[in-house]
This record gives sequence, C-alpha cells and structure tokens, in this order.
Amino acid sequence: MRKVKIGVIGHGCRGCGLMETMLLTDMYEFIMVCDKYEDRVKDGQKQVFDKLGYTPAGTTNYHEVLANPEVEAVLISCDWELHIPIAIDAMNAGKAIALEVGGAYTVESCFELVEAWERTRVPFMFLENCCYNKDELLATNMAKAGVLGRIVYASGSYAHDLRKEVVEGKEKRHYRLRNYLERNCENYPTHELGPIAKILGINRGNRMVSLVSMASGAFGMSDYVDKRVKNGEYVNPDLIGAKFAQGDIVNTIITCENGEQILLRLDTCLPRSYSREFIVHGTNGIYEQAYNSVFVEGEDEYWDPYDYAKHNLNNAEKYKEYLPEFWRTITKEQIDAGHGGMDFFELVDFATRLVEGRQMPIDVYDAAAWMVVTPLSEKSIAEGGMPQSIPDFTKGEYKARPRYDVTDK
Amino acid sequence: MRKVKIGVIGHGCRGCGLMETMLLTDMYEFIMVCDKYEDRVKDGQKQVFDKLGYTPAGTTNYHEVLANPEVEAVLISCDWELHIPIAIDAMNAGKAIALEVGGAYTVESCFELVEAWERTRVPFMFLENCCYNKDELLATNMAKAGVLGRIVYASGSYAHDLRKEVVEGKEKRHYRLRNYLERNCENYPTHELGPIAKILGINRGNRMVSLVSMASGAFGMSDYVDKRVKNGEYVNPDLIGAKFAQGDIVNTIITCENGEQILLRLDTCLPRSYSREFIVHGTNGIYEQAYNSVFVEGEDEYWDPYDYAKHNLNNAEKYKEYLPEFWRTITKEQIDAGHGGMDFFELVDFATRLVEGRQMPIDVYDAAAWMVVTPLSEKSIAEGGMPQSIPDFTKGEYKARPRYDVTDK
Repeated sequence: MRKVKIGVIGHGCRGCGLMETMLLTDMYEFIMVCDKYEDRVKDGQKQVFDKLGYTPAGTTNYHEVLANPEVEAVLISCDWELHIPIAIDAMNAGKAIALEVGGAYTVESCFELVEAWERTRVPFMFLENCCYNKDELLATNMAKAGVLGRIVYASGSYAHDLRKEVVEGKEKRHYRLRNYLERNCENYPTHELGPIAKILGINRGNRMVSLVSMASGAFGMSDYVDKRVKNGEYVNPDLIGAKFAQGDIVNTIITCENGEQILLRLDTCLPRSYSREFIVHGTNGIYEQAYNSVFVEGEDEYWDPYDYAKHNLNNAEKYKEYLPEFWRTITKEQIDAGHGGMDFFELVDFATRLVEGRQMPIDVYDAAAWMVVTPLSEKSIAEGGMPQSIPDFTKGEYKARPRYDVTDK
Repeated sequence: MRKVKIGVIGHGCRGCGLMETMLLTDMYEFIMVCDKYEDRVKDGQKQVFDKLGYTPAGTTNYHEVLANPEVEAVLISCDWELHIPIAIDAMNAGKAIALEVGGAYTVESCFELVEAWERTRVPFMFLENCCYNKDELLATNMAKAGVLGRIVYASGSYAHDLRKEVVEGKEKRHYRLRNYLERNCENYPTHELGPIAKILGINRGNRMVSLVSMASGAFGMSDYVDKRVKNGEYVNPDLIGAKFAQGDIVNTIITCENGEQILLRLDTCLPRSYSREFIVHGTNGIYEQAYNSVFVEGEDEYWDPYDYAKHNLNNAEKYKEYLPEFWRTITKEQIDAGHGGMDFFELVDFATRLVEGRQMPIDVYDAAAWMVVTPLSEKSIAEGGMPQSIPDFTKGEYKARPRYDVTDK
C-alpha cells in the first residue's frame, strides 16, 4: 500500500504522540511539520529524521501546509480553539483531514464545519481514539450482536487528574489553562460520547435531542495551587489566588430521540486515578468498564449485594469472542504505541481508508454532534441547568443513514 | 435498659424484615402489629410469638395502634403513599416514630410532615439504613477527618434489578407496581442521598438548592413481561402489553448552596447486580464503593489508566481505622440480621436514643429534604429536564444548625 503524504499541524504533546504512532504504523510519509512555536517544529522534524532518516519541511504557518500540493492529508492536533477553523481551511484547500478531538466553542462553528465539508466533501475523520479501544469495542460488538438486549442507557467519564497539566499550562504552553480559567463546561466530552454515540446509532437512525449540564463549584485547581506553594514548588504567580471558572465536576444528561439516555461526567480537577467508567446497559444485560465486567441475564451470576469487596466480577475476558480480530492479536509494540493500542488501530484505519478510498467511520456529522455538547453544556450550566436542544446537523438525513462503525469495511 | 414498646404498622416484606431485626436486638417489646391485610397481621403476631413466646395485639386499622396508650413508638413501613399521612397521624397521637424510607408524592406533603413535627416535637427518626452502613460510614468518617480534603462531589445509585418484584406486584400486593405503571421519577432517592446529605451537612450549614432530573424511556419492564410470557411463566394478564410510565434509568443532579454537586441514579428496571456505587470526592482524594477503594493524594498510587482489569484497588481495608467501633467488632449474627448489618445498628440506635431521651440523628428536616426529591424529579422529568428549586424546610435555621451524625452521641 502506498503511504499517506501527511502534513502535521500542531506538535505539542498530543501532536508529538500521534506522530510517534504514525511512525510506528509505517503508513505515513511526513511532508511538513507545523507548529506556531519554532522549537516544536524542529522537534517534529527531528522526530521524523531519527526514525526515517529524512527531514520534512517545517513551518510556523499552517497555511503553508495547506498550500503545499504534495500534502494530501493533514493531522490537526493543536489548541482546541483552532480545531474547527483550521479544519475548515483544510477542507477549502482540498486536503483530507484527521482532526484530533476536543469540544467546540460555539454552536455556529459546528454548523460551519459541516457546511464546509458538504461543500468540499474531502475525506474527514474525527480522531476519537476511544472508538477503537478494546473495552468500548467489546461493548459495541456485544450491543450490536444483541447480547445486551435493547440498549437503554450508556454513560462514561473523562475522569483524569489534570491539575498539574492545567496549572503548568503557561510553562507548557497548554491551551487547557486558559480554558479552565475562563470557561465552565463539559470541555472534553468525546472520549465517552464517541463510543456511546456509535453504539446508539447517533446520526444513523437516532439522534441526541436535548441535554442538561450542571457543574460543581471550582475548588480543586485553587487547592492544588495552594498545595504547591506550601510545598515550595514553582507556580506561575498569576495563578496564586486566581479564580478558576471551570467547575471541578460537570455532569451532563443527554436524551436521545429513540428513548436512550446518556450521562457524561467531566472530572479533571480533583485527585484520582484515570477512568472512563464506560457503561452500556440494555434490557438483557450490562457492560461496566469500572468492574471490567459483563452481566448477561441468564448467563452471569448476581453478586452478593452486601459484599462490595467482591463486586468486581472482572469477567469481561469470558466474552472475548466479541472483540474485533485486531484486539485479539495485538502486539506488545502496538500496545506501547499510545493509549494502550487504540491510537495505533485508529491511525492505521485512517491511512488504510484514505488510500483505499473508503468512507471514514467517524465523520463530520459525528464530529459536529459530539463537539457541540461543549457550548451547549456551557449555556446550560450558565442558566442553572436549563435544558438545551441539540441541533440535527444531518438535516433529517439521520433517519435513513445506515449504521457504520469503525469495524465496518 | 428498658425496652421500647412498639407498634408495627405495615407487615409486608420490609416490615417483616425490620421486625426480625428488632427481635434480634432484644430492645423492643411488641405491643401491636398492624397491616391492612389480615394474613399479614397474623404472620407478624406469629413472628413475635415464635421468638418471644407472647402474641402482640393485631389490627388492620392503624388508628387502633395510635389509640393504644401502651404503644410509645411506631414503626411505619407500609405503602410509600401512606408514609407521610400515617407519620402525621402518629405525631398527632404523640407517638415516637421510626419511619421507613421512600420518596414523597408532593412537595406540600413534605411541608405538612415538618409542620406536624414542629407542632408535636415527638421523637422522629427516618430509617435510612445506608446511613449506618460500613462503606458509607467509612467515607463519612474519612470526610469528617479531612482526609479527602474539601468535599466537592458525591454520587450514588439505587441500582437494583426490581423487575420481578414490580411485575409480581399484584400477587405480592406490592406498592411498587402501581408506582411503576403510573409515575416517572426518582422514586427511591434516599439510600444514596441520605449518607451524602449527612456528609455534606445538608440542613446543617448547607442545603440543596436545585435539581434537574431526566429519565430514559421505559423498556425494561415490558421486556421482562414479554420474556416471562415467552418462557411460559405466569404474568398478571393486565401487564401483558401494558405501558409502564417509569423510565428505566433516572439521573438527578443536585446543586448545594456551598458549591457541592450530588448525582443520584435510579436503575431498577434492567438486569444487573445490585450496587449503590457510593462516591465521595474531595480536593484530597476519593472514596469509590464500586472499586472498594480509597485514593488519597500522596498516600495511594495512581493506577495504570490503560489496564482496566487492574482498576479495582480494593484497598478500603487500609483505612479501616476510620470505621466506627461497631463496624470493627460486628458479629456474624448482626451481619445476617438484615442488609449486611446496617439494619441492626440502625434499630439499636433508634431504641437507645429513644430510651435515653437523646436526639435522633436523621430527623424530620432530613426526611423532608430527601423525600421531596421524588416529586421535584417527577416535575423536572415531565418538563424535559427543567431545573427545580428545592425548598428549605428549616426556614433558614440550617445556617446555624450544628453537624450531627449517626455516630454522634
């Protein structure tokens, strides 16, 4: 298979990680590396040279990437604010797009993204890596096979202690800092919502119709700043005594047209271990990532309700026949390539589909529907939990669009 | 210590269980047993005779219990609909009250309960047994000791597969059936909310100010009816093809005056094992019942985020010093007495406090604030998730009321 001639826009921590995984797939030829910071451009060039022995062009101006006729596709992984504007520019330049995830800033920008795509119809993939993850695909395939019955409910969390990343945002030139200082919203919904939306057939026979969001107070970041000061660790002086806008916990409840409910929790400002706590619950059973367990009626035993220490069934392995082939044969190298393997499969899939001219499984309608949760949650929170309508970006087409998942050919 | 002369009002499954635990405590003298069904009255009388060798008076009219001067206290454990009306009648009759939990039907009825108590000031205890449970008290004591930092968030579920109980409601004369057919609400909030409210100091320095509730569609009960019919099992013919009003999953987000958020999930219509999934999350750590784990910053290790099979830390034992004494010395007999031991401690506490003339730790303001979640959630769901104000039943007194927990003397 020929290689995808890619331009990388954004070489911060995530862009660097995605490039490393791309290098591992051996499916990409790196034409240009772009970042607004010169040192990051150089890092990206070196990253390619060290592995492949050549140096891609470098620029701090992403328009140069889009103007380069050799570049057939761009990886966009930059500040959240620029995801949609750069994606639209890339569409207008006729480039294929792999867009890293993040929430949107306005409802209008999501419509603009869809409108630009409908005008240009470039290959577009929203890089929600969790759609390729083992647990989520196990649950997806069990749901598709009907093992869990009629799916009624799904939930998940982005529970990730980001205090250090946020508070060191100035030194690390990280966009999260300004977001946490200025916004209060479900700022990162897609890791849970992506796999859930695929399972529920959102934009494909179903759609999300409304949401409510509420946020707790903001205590975690200030507490963390205080702890660092007390411990004599460096903190950006602007943050000492600063007020963070972002509530520590945001819960968002989404109602779907076909009657399902989705719950999303953002939990990034307090100490805890990472978890997505993915749950898929139907009339015949439940998959619970937190317990690494599957409970299927008539197949699995109810546990002792009063002995919590024994509640972790840890029996998901029993259902491994539902894993896609690539998760049953994963190698150590693929696992180590990023986020336990899911990044590898995602970037192989993007390249393969692009070269073979097949449709992308996470398209612009998915991107718009998932990203719009962020501005709608912001409005709901600001209005004390008022319900918000979720737009239908497909303009009614969702009713007839067939299911199409990441494991579909 | 003298025994509490009790009249039992309601001898269904729960009333019977509570009586069994009361018998085990050896702190109660049974004066009367009442149920609207004659056979249940006889069962209750026999239950006492078998254990203690005497037969309490029996009646199908609860007013006879309230009119009996020998009865000093009543246990009310009947249809949810009658909890508040009977409690008010009992207050007016000057009886001490142990009121089994359940949600209210109207906001007004909660105000009436409070008003009747303020007029009569009888000893009143709301029997939220989970406030006495091991896990919840471990988290409570850790929170009180400051180990978890400033508490920001707490959540819990009533996740209990009640399909059989509900669908067999006619044969079992169970009130849940009509509730599931006719209402759509957070119908059973207190098992999670009780311990959470105690931890957050609700009615004691803090209060719940608003909530939003949303419900999924109702699929589970009908599916269960269909399965039974298909399997040739008996189903009340009225339920074949019947439409249930109660959504399978209800999520309720509550905002507290001091900035904390509470999330409650009702999950009773789909197959799954029991769980309350109690979580208490603060600026210094988290207690998670689902993982039977505690994560304290600087004390516990972050787990590998990509290896879900190892996410169950199961390390709560490490923090057992925070358990109340009675949970460290529990006997096998106490554990077997009901719900893993918590019922025993609760009913010992009620009797002890009543005889010693001490205040009850779960009072009428707690009962009203927790029970009112049900009608408010019903309204929010009916209005598509509109936020609802939660009344302050203390009329501003909550600001100065000192903390008082079940483990306080």
